[in-house]
Amino acid sequence: MNPIELNQSASHWRLRLGALMDSSAITRLVTILILINAAILGMQTSASLMAQWGSLLNGLDQLILGLFIIELTLRFIARGPALLRDPWAVFDCLIIGIALVPASGPFAVLRALRVLRVLRLISINPNMRRVVQALLSSLPGMSSIAMLLGLLFYVAAVMATQLFGEAFPEWFGTLGASLYTLFQVMTLESWSMGIVRPVMETFPLAWLYFVPFILIATFMMLNLFIAVVVNAMQTTHDQEALQAPPSPTEQLLLDELRALRAELAELRQQR
Amino acid sequence: MNPIELNQSASHWRLRLGALMDSSAITRLVTILILINAAILGMQTSASLMAQWGSLLNGLDQLILGLFIIELTLRFIARGPALLRDPWAVFDCLIIGIALVPASGPFAVLRALRVLRVLRLISINPNMRRVVQALLSSLPGMSSIAMLLGLLFYVAAVMATQLFGEAFPEWFGTLGASLYTLFQVMTLESWSMGIVRPVMETFPLAWLYFVPFILIATFMMLNLFIAVVVNAMQTTHDQEALQAPPSPTEQLLLDELRALRAELAELRQQR
Amino acid sequence: MNPIELNQSASHWRLRLGALMDSSAITRLVTILILINAAILGMQTSASLMAQWGSLLNGLDQLILGLFIIELTLRFIARGPALLRDPWAVFDCLIIGIALVPASGPFAVLRALRVLRVLRLISINPNMRRVVQALLSSLPGMSSIAMLLGLLFYVAAVMATQLFGEAFPEWFGTLGASLYTLFQVMTLESWSMGIVRPVMETFPLAWLYFVPFILIATFMMLNLFIAVVVNAMQTTHDQEALQAPPSPTEQLLLDELRALRAELAELRQQR
Amino acid sequence: MNPIELNQSASHWRLRLGALMDSSAITRLVTILILINAAILGMQTSASLMAQWGSLLNGLDQLILGLFIIELTLRFIARGPALLRDPWAVFDCLIIGIALVPASGPFAVLRALRVLRVLRLISINPNMRRVVQALLSSLPGMSSIAMLLGLLFYVAAVMATQLFGEAFPEWFGTLGASLYTLFQVMTLESWSMGIVRPVMETFPLAWLYFVPFILIATFMMLNLFIAVVVNAMQTTHDQEALQAPPSPTEQLLLDELRALRAELAELRQQR
Repeated sequence: MNPIELNQSASHWRLRLGALMDSSAITRLVTILILINAAILGMQTSASLMAQWGSLLNGLDQLILGLFIIELTLRFIARGPALLRDPWAVFDCLIIGIALVPASGPFAVLRALRVLRVLRLISINPNMRRVVQALLSSLPGMSSIAMLLGLLFYVAAVMATQLFGEAFPEWFGTLGASLYTLFQVMTLESWSMGIVRPVMETFPLAWLYFVPFILIATFMMLNLFIAVVVNAMQTTHDQEALQAPPSPTEQLLLDELRALRAELAELRQQR
Repeated sequence: MNPIELNQSASHWRLRLGALMDSSAITRLVTILILINAAILGMQTSASLMAQWGSLLNGLDQLILGLFIIELTLRFIARGPALLRDPWAVFDCLIIGIALVPASGPFAVLRALRVLRVLRLISINPNMRRVVQALLSSLPGMSSIAMLLGLLFYVAAVMATQLFGEAFPEWFGTLGASLYTLFQVMTLESWSMGIVRPVMETFPLAWLYFVPFILIATFMMLNLFIAVVVNAMQTTHDQEALQAPPSPTEQLLLDELRALRAELAELRQQR
Repeated sequence: MNPIELNQSASHWRLRLGALMDSSAITRLVTILILINAAILGMQTSASLMAQWGSLLNGLDQLILGLFIIELTLRFIARGPALLRDPWAVFDCLIIGIALVPASGPFAVLRALRVLRVLRLISINPNMRRVVQALLSSLPGMSSIAMLLGLLFYVAAVMATQLFGEAFPEWFGTLGASLYTLFQVMTLESWSMGIVRPVMETFPLAWLYFVPFILIATFMMLNLFIAVVVNAMQTTHDQEALQAPPSPTEQLLLDELRALRAELAELRQQR
Repeated sequence: MNPIELNQSASHWRLRLGALMDSSAITRLVTILILINAAILGMQTSASLMAQWGSLLNGLDQLILGLFIIELTLRFIARGPALLRDPWAVFDCLIIGIALVPASGPFAVLRALRVLRVLRLISINPNMRRVVQALLSSLPGMSSIAMLLGLLFYVAAVMATQLFGEAFPEWFGTLGASLYTLFQVMTLESWSMGIVRPVMETFPLAWLYFVPFILIATFMMLNLFIAVVVNAMQTTHDQEALQAPPSPTEQLLLDELRALRAELAELRQQR
């Protein structure tokens, strides 16, 4: 075999592997594995189940993780580095990679991130993938108002820290604390009984700061919301307009026009 | 009488019974019975009324229940097993059936379910039935985002149980407790003062978990909402497009076209 | 003067009075009186202002009330009993009538209702009247879902009273208390930390009642909301369609058609 | 040089300065200065950073403020008093002016307003300016319902002060306190557990006041919201209609019409 033939044969072999990995049988198998893994990860949160079946659950978890690694390796072999240009494949690799970092010492929190593996249900299911992409596609339309909202939050947080920071260190002591408290106020959670009424006992005019903040922030959230709705409507409307059957009036126009043409044809025949 | 005649006569008799049961007189009578029963069930919740009129109220309740059972039996005789293909009839049977289970011992809670009988107002009133069907018809459009939201909740609940379960067993001790707490957080009820601030006293970085969760969950709820609105709009818009009279411009086009045809007809006559 | 002339003269005199009462000068004067009255009613809530200027404020209030009564009497003379067919006039009479009931003993609460007089700003201002009528016109479209929501509330309240009434008499002791508590739960105010978590300490499965209630009630509120939005859109859309200028494509069709007609006219002239 | 030439030369010199100030280099430089200033203003809220780098941060802040003043002065020289007809320029002057008021004694609160300088990011960035103008342009459409809502709040606050003022001075003691509490109730924050349940312990029928208030106020907020959404939709729809390509049916009509015209032209040639 000359090198070119060898190359062709290798390429052929990789194409067949790629087709196999994308086949519905493998997809269904992986989906089932993810669901089993989700159930196992859920059961691992129960102390009583772990006391009785702990080693079995951990073993199964490791087994499925191993199968996932094999699956990703095969995909990588089949499609080569090009795989990493597909954001969903990168997503899969990151999610699986988390499980490989030793979750001890400062990384103990990573243990909790292992359940992110269940999100592979999204990347394996084309339907789910489409929904997530639709959700993500509505983000850019929100960017300019989101930036404005971010600016408002920054300015409001600096002001709140300077005004109320000394008297209420828990809520407004640092820039971060103020940002968190203002986020809470924007969600309207305990804004008055929990935050503003106590503040007003020290600063009676504090409502001059908080009421406008609430009005402006909720008005901006409303406009963020409208940006998403209008966008969604427009997309639906455009798609509809392209597929819409003629309305009764348009049908009438069309019939009239065809009749006219038939008459003209008759006129020409008469000569 | 030969068997066929007998059969025909029986069938005839059943058709007449079916027509009678669907007549507006019976429908109105059953509606009034349901309203009376609703009032009785309401009065039964009052201890003072029960002390004075208890046996009368219970007696009337039993009487009306008996009439409902007779009504359903007659409907069943009239339409036969085919009745059970109508989901509203199944709904009626279930609601009435609950009252027949002895509400004692472990089934004591079923006593409270007896009031569901009042929901027969929906199944007996065609107008109400249509509204409920319209509400239910908007559910399938929500399914894919609802599944995604379910996945998010499951993943978030497993993470929360692992991260905060030991320190806050009441809120995050089990998978179920975490799911309930996250539902509360998504509705924004006391999320900060009630849950996240106490958690942050132990885990200062807990906001890194909760703030993104709130943003993602409310963004998904917003999209669920939009899916329903866009669907409702589309349905309305489609129905409207089919019944819309010509717009002024379309009318102009139509007039122009008809004038053209009249002129052409004149041209033909001239020859 | 004979009776008919007398009648005509009286009728003429009444027509002129009616025109005078509807003139912009009187309308503006009444508007200013209402605004002054609003300010007085506001100042009457201040104990310190009442201590100093109490008799003056009360005197001015009585004076303006007297002017309003004269105004309404003149309107009644001008338009006769037909005035009461106008719902806004009935509204004015009711609002003024409240001030005439002696506000003592069991009617002391009526004193607080005197401020409703300020709502005459709506009935005197055609612009405001139009906005209120637009708001009211969106109510019928909500009626069928509102009825369904009412039914849900009644059924849920009876169930809650039976299930939790004995253990939590303050929240679910009577049908009225349950209705109020369920309204609070539907607005999501303290539903979990304030109501459901305490209830779950006694009845661990109470979430099986409350979580579905919240989902169904908010879903219905969403649909109520959509009914109003879709209605508003449709009205706007219909009005727009009637006034819309031709779209570029429609203009093209129109131009093409007119060119065709011109050519046909030329063809006829050629003969 | 005669005076006219001098004038022309001065005018020429001012035009060049104006062009320089509007050049993208200066715009970018000012943007960077604003961002640096934003960071400095944020760092000034940290006590530890101020202890170590306080004089440096204050010095840099003063330096940037000086540069901003020079920039505004140059703009004023370039465009003259006409500059003050541009609302964004007035906005810039106000924001910078705040920093020049000595922030001591009763004006100490002005120190906190210095961070408003960061809002110059909006006036310097054309994109941001457009978003803010779009937000502001949706305000007039809300005015009539906002006025109605204001009227409702005033009437409700006077009533609440008269009814509950004596018993609950903290919440309803003055007109201002009532307005604040009603705003809190409208946002649904702790309305029941925090306000209405305590009030109902003294006045058992208080729900007759609060529940209708909530229903009317949220219904009006909903309509405010709808006014904004419908407006946004309409604008989008109008812009779309002007740029929309022909729908399939319209294309069909157009093709049919052109074929007709071609046939007619052939008919004329035949003669």
